[in-house]
Amino acid sequence: MKMKKEIIVYSISDSLGGTSQKLLAAVTAQYPDIIFNNSYRFPFINQEEELLDILQDAVKDDALVITTLVNSQLAALAREFSQSHGLSYLDLMHPFFEIIQEKTGSRPIEVPGTLHRLDGDYFKKISAIEFAVKYDDGKAPQGFIDADLVLLGVSRTSKTPLSIYLANKGYKVANLPLIPEVPLPQVLEKVASHRLIGLVCEPEKLAKIRINRLDSLGLSQETSYTDLEKIYQELDYSKMVFKKYGASIINVSDKSIEETAFLIEEHLKKMSEDR
Amino acid sequence: MKMKKEIIVYSISDSLGGTSQKLLAAVTAQYPDIIFNNSYRFPFINQEEELLDILQDAVKDDALVITTLVNSQLAALAREFSQSHGLSYLDLMHPFFEIIQEKTGSRPIEVPGTLHRLDGDYFKKISAIEFAVKYDDGKAPQGFIDADLVLLGVSRTSKTPLSIYLANKGYKVANLPLIPEVPLPQVLEKVASHRLIGLVCEPEKLAKIRINRLDSLGLSQETSYTDLEKIYQELDYSKMVFKKYGASIINVSDKSIEETAFLIEEHLKKMSEDR
Repeated sequence: MKMKKEIIVYSISDSLGGTSQKLLAAVTAQYPDIIFNNSYRFPFINQEEELLDILQDAVKDDALVITTLVNSQLAALAREFSQSHGLSYLDLMHPFFEIIQEKTGSRPIEVPGTLHRLDGDYFKKISAIEFAVKYDDGKAPQGFIDADLVLLGVSRTSKTPLSIYLANKGYKVANLPLIPEVPLPQVLEKVASHRLIGLVCEPEKLAKIRINRLDSLGLSQETSYTDLEKIYQELDYSKMVFKKYGASIINVSDKSIEETAFLIEEHLKKMSEDR
Repeated sequence: MKMKKEIIVYSISDSLGGTSQKLLAAVTAQYPDIIFNNSYRFPFINQEEELLDILQDAVKDDALVITTLVNSQLAALAREFSQSHGLSYLDLMHPFFEIIQEKTGSRPIEVPGTLHRLDGDYFKKISAIEFAVKYDDGKAPQGFIDADLVLLGVSRTSKTPLSIYLANKGYKVANLPLIPEVPLPQVLEKVASHRLIGLVCEPEKLAKIRINRLDSLGLSQETSYTDLEKIYQELDYSKMVFKKYGASIINVSDKSIEETAFLIEEHLKKMSEDR
């Protein structure tokens, strides 16, 4: 049996260290055969001795070291240490800083964690998240009036996670489950059609997702909720609603939340350009 | 009057292109005097001609080009073009790939967007987000039993955004607002104390946040909700609850959601190590 290769990753930051993690996830996804041990995370490092201690451990662990240190002295120390000790080392910030200095002559302010400023954008995002939670699942349809977007769709078409994901980007999103037996709220007629997004999914795929859902709730699978015939009817009904209100339709089958959100953002941009 | 410098940033990816944006945000935060125009984003680029068209525009715009292209041919093309045309260029992926190849001999699979795989972790995250929305604001206290964490605190101590942020990391989080006039749900007694987090905030800060909150709702500010005396009482009551149930206390004044979440994760790790 072939052993899987393992790489230990040390992430060192003078702030929280979240910045490197998304890039690292994208990189490691390219190596299905390598196990990346990413549990060595060192936030708030701002003393030379602390940094040296960590780097010495990294040598012992034969680790890959990634830094997001804005302090140029600490970054230089890490670079020199890595070169002299043959340590695999990547500085994610300073290549940027060098290019920006070449282009503009400007130097970074070197204040760690500036990203987490409690500024206007930050509070806008928080309030968008609160909005999405408050107006989830058609709980309070009057919120549709203030929403940037109202997501419509039958059960399990990813309305809630999509609402939250878009809220993280600052959009105020409400959502409404479409159930043939339940009348639509009147306020829906007052929402501009370009703000309405109808989510659809392949019936077979939806049946599968719903069966998994019931499984995870410990329930039996023999209900109309997972009945393919019934799902076809629900989807037909939802398409009729989309047509009536002029909602733009997105098929979410085999799309991740990120991909669907991207299409919605493109739609919003196009709409605001067309006006 | 001194003009602010502006840098146009081109972000080119063969997937959605989200990976570069967090790093870019961290970098640009270091230059308060430079305007970064980050509206040139090019996702799903996988043809040489497309890429060359974009790079030619980048030259005209004197742009800074960032790529997250997993395809090595496209990345090489971008590098060569940039060198021969004096374009400022940063490849975020391939420096990683080179180091990993040195360390292990392995090469990347070069499949764009592998990050957005619909795998187990992905569905765990989605279901954690749905959990957080469902059990927000004490709506259904029976959910406390299944929660990894229950956040407790008076109004405006950031319970909802924190729940969602932690859900994005896969934790199942419920939250309960503490209101002296409202009895606590009995189920709280069944939650292990290490799963309870009590959020507190400086009274003056909380009063300010609540005034802003009422402002944003278009309401008058003269209510007991923003009365400092009343806020002291509420916070005293909340601390009494935390003590009774053995909740760990975190002061959220001047902390971003990310920072508070970090402390909570550290607490959880410590707790699981101690067992």
